[in-house]
Amino acid sequence: MGSISFARGIPAPECIPVEELADCARAALLADGRTVLSYGSPSGYEPLREWLAERHGVERDRVLLTNGGLQGFVFIARELVGTGDRVLVEAPTYDRPLKILRALGAEIVPVAMDDEGLELSALERALDTGERPAFLYTIPTFQNPSGRTLTTERRRALVALAGECGLLVLEDDPYGLVRFDGKPEPTLLELAPDDTVAYASSFSKTVAPGVRVGYFVLPAELRAELEATAVSTYITPGLLGQATVYEFIRRGNFDANLERVRDLLRVRRDAMLDALERELGGSGATWSRPAGGYFIWLELPGVDAGELLTRAEEAGVTFVRGTDFGGAPTTLRLAYSYVSTDEIAEGIARLAALVPATATR
Amino acid sequence: MGSISFARGIPAPECIPVEELADCARAALLADGRTVLSYGSPSGYEPLREWLAERHGVERDRVLLTNGGLQGFVFIARELVGTGDRVLVEAPTYDRPLKILRALGAEIVPVAMDDEGLELSALERALDTGERPAFLYTIPTFQNPSGRTLTTERRRALVALAGECGLLVLEDDPYGLVRFDGKPEPTLLELAPDDTVAYASSFSKTVAPGVRVGYFVLPAELRAELEATAVSTYITPGLLGQATVYEFIRRGNFDANLERVRDLLRVRRDAMLDALERELGGSGATWSRPAGGYFIWLELPGVDAGELLTRAEEAGVTFVRGTDFGGAPTTLRLAYSYVSTDEIAEGIARLAALVPATATR
Repeated sequence: MGSISFARGIPAPECIPVEELADCARAALLADGRTVLSYGSPSGYEPLREWLAERHGVERDRVLLTNGGLQGFVFIARELVGTGDRVLVEAPTYDRPLKILRALGAEIVPVAMDDEGLELSALERALDTGERPAFLYTIPTFQNPSGRTLTTERRRALVALAGECGLLVLEDDPYGLVRFDGKPEPTLLELAPDDTVAYASSFSKTVAPGVRVGYFVLPAELRAELEATAVSTYITPGLLGQATVYEFIRRGNFDANLERVRDLLRVRRDAMLDALERELGGSGATWSRPAGGYFIWLELPGVDAGELLTRAEEAGVTFVRGTDFGGAPTTLRLAYSYVSTDEIAEGIARLAALVPATATR
Repeated sequence: MGSISFARGIPAPECIPVEELADCARAALLADGRTVLSYGSPSGYEPLREWLAERHGVERDRVLLTNGGLQGFVFIARELVGTGDRVLVEAPTYDRPLKILRALGAEIVPVAMDDEGLELSALERALDTGERPAFLYTIPTFQNPSGRTLTTERRRALVALAGECGLLVLEDDPYGLVRFDGKPEPTLLELAPDDTVAYASSFSKTVAPGVRVGYFVLPAELRAELEATAVSTYITPGLLGQATVYEFIRRGNFDANLERVRDLLRVRRDAMLDALERELGGSGATWSRPAGGYFIWLELPGVDAGELLTRAEEAGVTFVRGTDFGGAPTTLRLAYSYVSTDEIAEGIARLAALVPATATR
């Protein structure tokens, strides 16, 4: 077995319904090609906006489709964050937004998490000790990188607190539908009064990353501002990917495909949890037990994840250091989404063999 | 006949080969779907990059594909232009780049044009009277908004001057292939030594705007910097549109479709020139006679184009005021690309009827 990547937070190839999407792309163009292939709405393909608006129970003019979710984050950050402005983030959090915020000169304020997600007492302290932040960036469900999920109780408390303080919460929810077990928590968007939450998601994890369809449910005014930015950036987003996704939905494939993806990823999650227990159980190592998404967060007391990574690469297994996400030096992110169950078993064995016995057993 | 738009600089619906693109989208996904539908190269779909590199006689690592050409302009402007930096532009020029440069706080320096394009003496003066500009933005062929084309002689002189001064020339060439008559001038890219010209084009006018495929041939170092920006903005551009275009090319449809588009637009250009001669000939009005592209530039001495637009809208015909492009108040842009020949005849008649006799006949 060659090198095994627990670094790639992307779906396994078999998750992508290639043949069906090929048919959908063709059908979408035959049905509505003159619209899709010309310049169109800068907020995205109207039938898909409409479907998303209904799904989230909001007016269509709050929905903005972008060329992948990150593009929308860039628009929001540029709109709301000036040099020195405070932005609250979870510690740890997704590394790309951190880079974008740093490039804008933001003061990034990490807020501690535990196994139940963001710690509200830590959030309160962060709110009490400085200027009002531009926003709080949170991934409440199956978080990247930690795999953790904010409890329903905390969700209610979070939106209540945000409402009181006039804090805008940017809820990034790309993984929410990729749930393997248990009952879904409500999104913050569902719980919050209007204009407290800006909600982001995409079809990258439910259909395919390459369709490049991110979407946002925004306070109407913010949506209008971002639409103007979108016009000045790319005139019209990629309607071909959006119309292909819409056709996929229109045919009734979305839910069945999601079930298929969940099944493909659940066995990977299970394989990684089993391997961790087998190889590192009782060693002092701890890890998250996600009910969905792509990632497990591993903490190895006494181990420097950066040094471990160097040796792991030589041994044929890779991961991402926790420090890349603002995590502790003893932490690391394991993605089970891309690899096979055999690779997971072998890769965790390779990794465990490198962990000093003193640190683990 | 309803309202007639000479404002829309977009192709007529019949220019877009919908059915063929529908087949190409499907075929592209069936052939290479796992690549196209996943995350991929941030510089774009590799087979299309390769084809473009060969076509322009450059190394592939100088080619960057973006979500439409404007997105690439935004990347370049953000990379090269800080507050107060000078950027040279043609007067008049495409309005969207002007807005982007203004938002970045650039000092925009307009350089005069005549019927043969940019005036080199004016360019020399602009270069002599201030800090070295970040770049010169030029659309040398069938310019938007003027329809003018820089002569071959001036092209040679321009790249020589730019080479001497270390001036980066950003050559925007979306219309170059949409030529109706005459022999093509060389692009500035062809004439210039490496690293003097950054070249931009797209498939919006040769295939369809909705594929959202812009492309750039850049100095290798600049391409690497923009690729890093692309990763931090959208991870991967819209490969589905790019792969669809590549399949369209691979099937040998590109040149035949281009001929078809040229024919569809040539008759529109002819109809507008005929109508202008018929309605405004001998009136003192002057206009450009483009050998390709989408636009005619009309000058109406003694007429305020803004006031004319208000009355024109009431009379059922629209255009864009020259001042939007940095042109004189007596100028306006007429797009013949979107309308039928009947609409052109009627629209120009409506417009001419509004031009005060004193100003024209």
